[in-house]
Amino acid sequence: KGELLVIGGHEDKHHERLILRYLARRVGSGTLVVSAVASEEPEELWEEYEGVFRALNVRHVRRLSIESRADAESPKSLRVLKDATAVFLTGGDQLRITSMIGDTPVFSRLVEIFASGGMIAGTSAGASVMSETMLIGGGSNGSHRIGPDLQLAPGLGLAHDMVIDQHFAERGRIGRLLGVVAQNPRILGVGLDENTAIALNPSRGFRVLGEGAVYVVDGATVTNTNIAEEERDRAMSIYNVTVHLLTQGDRFTIATRTPSSAPAESIEKELGAAS
Amino acid sequence: KGELLVIGGHEDKHHERLILRYLARRVGSGTLVVSAVASEEPEELWEEYEGVFRALNVRHVRRLSIESRADAESPKSLRVLKDATAVFLTGGDQLRITSMIGDTPVFSRLVEIFASGGMIAGTSAGASVMSETMLIGGGSNGSHRIGPDLQLAPGLGLAHDMVIDQHFAERGRIGRLLGVVAQNPRILGVGLDENTAIALNPSRGFRVLGEGAVYVVDGATVTNTNIAEEERDRAMSIYNVTVHLLTQGDRFTIATRTPSSAPAESIEKELGAAS
Repeated sequence: KGELLVIGGHEDKHHERLILRYLARRVGSGTLVVSAVASEEPEELWEEYEGVFRALNVRHVRRLSIESRADAESPKSLRVLKDATAVFLTGGDQLRITSMIGDTPVFSRLVEIFASGGMIAGTSAGASVMSETMLIGGGSNGSHRIGPDLQLAPGLGLAHDMVIDQHFAERGRIGRLLGVVAQNPRILGVGLDENTAIALNPSRGFRVLGEGAVYVVDGATVTNTNIAEEERDRAMSIYNVTVHLLTQGDRFTIATRTPSSAPAESIEKELGAAS
Repeated sequence: KGELLVIGGHEDKHHERLILRYLARRVGSGTLVVSAVASEEPEELWEEYEGVFRALNVRHVRRLSIESRADAESPKSLRVLKDATAVFLTGGDQLRITSMIGDTPVFSRLVEIFASGGMIAGTSAGASVMSETMLIGGGSNGSHRIGPDLQLAPGLGLAHDMVIDQHFAERGRIGRLLGVVAQNPRILGVGLDENTAIALNPSRGFRVLGEGAVYVVDGATVTNTNIAEEERDRAMSIYNVTVHLLTQGDRFTIATRTPSSAPAESIEKELGAAS
């Protein structure tokens, strides 16, 4: 029932703030919990986001501080999440998120918030963790190689049948996303540029918000790839991938894997002027 | 009748040298003319390539020195090209090549060599100039924007219906190539990684050689794009692009726009061991 707000990193915090305004609007009079579990400098991130969300008139903003699995199992953390209607995961290292909260009461509570219609939002590392399988590494300079170039790990599993990548065009990550899709075209590759997000209903589809593009890599049409070959250091080949670049307003339906367009302004109108 | 050898830059000159061996093999007992017209340091490039081609047993290697349009019109330059069966254009700035040799006797002679079955080879800037329209600039950081982000110029026109880009994955250039294809899906986008080449028969197709991948962007399937919209600084959207990543041995047929595969080793066997 819930919505995921998946952000490609470096979302605007000081000007238009369209993506964070969208989040603030969804929170409304509810409670937003911010967790910088991904980061080794959680203090600074908390202060920055708290300021931004307060400026956007989110009245109830609370901090979830997790620096160990013990924190993710503590009654104190669960108290912070008690009334939460939305949770925001900052950037940092996606493995910090999953290794600290995976299979803990905090994780169960996130799933509960989401299942009961709340919003789980995440940027950068906080975006990657949304899917069942997540990218944690992979060379983005040069052509993608079959074999050791791709590093995957189990994510939080809130989004299904897709792998999400972030800082996408900025860090030239199309190769590694094509690599994941070549491994298994069941997976839809979704690459988010910076200051760009998808508002995702995992069983239906998503809408694009923000400045950049969302790359969708659909392997359903693929006819051939060498990804399963033995030779480890060869460049990867893949034929007939379908690629979409979607921008603000565009929607994507997951069941049919088809994009559709809407005016970019529709979202701005919906959110009203920047406060 | 001729063949184009189009190289994505930084081809190996000191180890395997597969791409340059392919060129040397094609030259055989003929005459190879090297031009560093693209470069502001032609002397160094000439010395380097002369050494490499001599090491690869090309007996007749000559230097075509062009630093002005007058040079490209001089009888001396035409004498250098008189017996040429292959011409190699080094990297540098593609506009130096086209602005100095466009519509000169040297250019006519290149066309003649090509039409009579010779080989025109080029790396980096020397690769981009092969097509009728060539890329000379375009942001490769961040998502591609409609409007001023894409800089095109008229190329040498030896290859038709395609735009060639180089240093492709290394410089994250997929966005700008998608931009050209969005402008006109008649054009096939061909992006060459470094140390990677296509041996191209412009009316038939090409074969891939070298270490990296060749990205083919086919817009025939495109259903929608915002590239023609007024708003200049928006990110570009495009739906249903077909993308192929081809690697060594793979072939591509232009008439049908279809890839086909062959073992990577076939080219190595064909060329024999490194000398």
